Amino acid sequence: MNILWLFAHPEHRSLNASLRDDGVRALRAAGHEVRQSDLYAMGFKAVLDADDYAGDDAAGDAAGGRLLVGDAQEDGWRAGTVSADIAAEHEKLAWADALVVHFPLWWFGPPAILKGWFDRVLVQGLASKVKDAQGNTRRYGDGGLAGKRAVVVTSVGAREASFGPRGIHGHIDEVLWPLHHGTFFYTGMAPLPPFVVYGADRLTREDYPAVAEALRERLHGLGTTAPLPYRPERGGDYDEGLELRPELAEGERGLGIHSASGDRPVPVRAEGAPVRAG
Amino acid sequence: MNILWLFAHPEHRSLNASLRDDGVRALRAAGHEVRQSDLYAMGFKAVLDADDYAGDDAAGDAAGGRLLVGDAQEDGWRAGTVSADIAAEHEKLAWADALVVHFPLWWFGPPAILKGWFDRVLVQGLASKVKDAQGNTRRYGDGGLAGKRAVVVTSVGAREASFGPRGIHGHIDEVLWPLHHGTFFYTGMAPLPPFVVYGADRLTREDYPAVAEALRERLHGLGTTAPLPYRPERGGDYDEGLELRPELAEGERGLGIHSASGDRPVPVRAEGAPVRAG
Repeated sequence: MNILWLFAHPEHRSLNASLRDDGVRALRAAGHEVRQSDLYAMGFKAVLDADDYAGDDAAGDAAGGRLLVGDAQEDGWRAGTVSADIAAEHEKLAWADALVVHFPLWWFGPPAILKGWFDRVLVQGLASKVKDAQGNTRRYGDGGLAGKRAVVVTSVGAREASFGPRGIHGHIDEVLWPLHHGTFFYTGMAPLPPFVVYGADRLTREDYPAVAEALRERLHGLGTTAPLPYRPERGGDYDEGLELRPELAEGERGLGIHSASGDRPVPVRAEGAPVRAG
Repeated sequence: MNILWLFAHPEHRSLNASLRDDGVRALRAAGHEVRQSDLYAMGFKAVLDADDYAGDDAAGDAAGGRLLVGDAQEDGWRAGTVSADIAAEHEKLAWADALVVHFPLWWFGPPAILKGWFDRVLVQGLASKVKDAQGNTRRYGDGGLAGKRAVVVTSVGAREASFGPRGIHGHIDEVLWPLHHGTFFYTGMAPLPPFVVYGADRLTREDYPAVAEALRERLHGLGTTAPLPYRPERGGDYDEGLELRPELAEGERGLGIHSASGDRPVPVRAEGAPVRAG
């Protein structure tokens, strides 16, 4: 497979940087092609602004000089005038069969530099408001990035139970909902269960080999692991108002209803050895 | 009250900018003090990196020159050597009784420039790893920002039902979990129900007055609206492993179990004077 490894950590001597190096090595040893977007190393511009579409005079003119983000993105993307750093990421995205999205969890989400990658690179036309031949929006299980797989690799200071189904931080799959469902699945990618290093603050040098081995095992299954079983938008489970049909997960609410397996919340990680902190 | 309005939109002629102007005006007319952090207008640095703590030589030295984010934040904060733009936000935060956090929802989260505000400003010591006299961590319903209130003001293109309890995008309260629970409640702030402009792409000039009026009404209740009823960490509902006790929301899972309204109405903060409108 062709794999794009997105990496967002400010310290190249960190635990996560070591895991990235080991992961990339393992993928290459298994015969995969790997390219990287090491966002800190690239000095990636995090903040979406009008400069991203400065090459496209028409976009601003149409709105009387006012920046309408979605329109400016789509116009720039269609005209080939988005800024060069965005275009370079588009080329990598088109090339990739799978994305590894690797970051430390900060305030229960990706670091700003990674959020900015999604804001700036996943432009309208390519990643949102993608239409099929009948004019229907392709989204949630279909879309501009359909056919690709994506997996989060992240680290947290807390212990695993506190990110479990009844843990105080929220279940890790649901904490990552904006990425898993709102970004990966939304754009058509298949979101795989995340690889999470728990208790990262307490990890010792002696613990590292087991963590790296667990990551290698997960990467080994990158092409075969079953994705999170979200319901596709156009699979018949949602009504015209985009609400789940009343007879499915009847009377229930919560993010778990959007997973199809047995109409009940899914076990976090059906497979794969849990990583334990030392 | 003293109110800090955090604003993250790249276009000062946008719907959101108009709402911000109207909201600030209404708060001032009601006798409140309002200060703003208009992140785009400020050119706020979104990306946390070693430069944020460059004034603190000890931090890097202790780790052999390696950036340990939490430690560098806490050392810099205690020594008063964090960068000037972060210190300026700390001063506003200390001043504020309430935060309005206002942004367009991009990829189901805040724009990178706002995520970067949380990454950089909410430093360890002030906002995380805050200890009480007994050495217990003050978190979730208590913490360095206890006594303050916070409300999200945001806009989405989709219609309301699709962000409802059974909507395909996930319930807006749960989509915003990383902010509401993982950031506001985590640091001790009381998260209020969000103000959301739905169908923002389809809003016409004629619709605007009603939206602005609805926002003014919500802001009128900034000091009195009941917060989201999350369970405090140290209120007895969680066990030592930080899992919800089995007899509460028995057999259930999902983010909804962390709200107490089903079992019993628990005030967000067990102690401390509630903030009242001025």
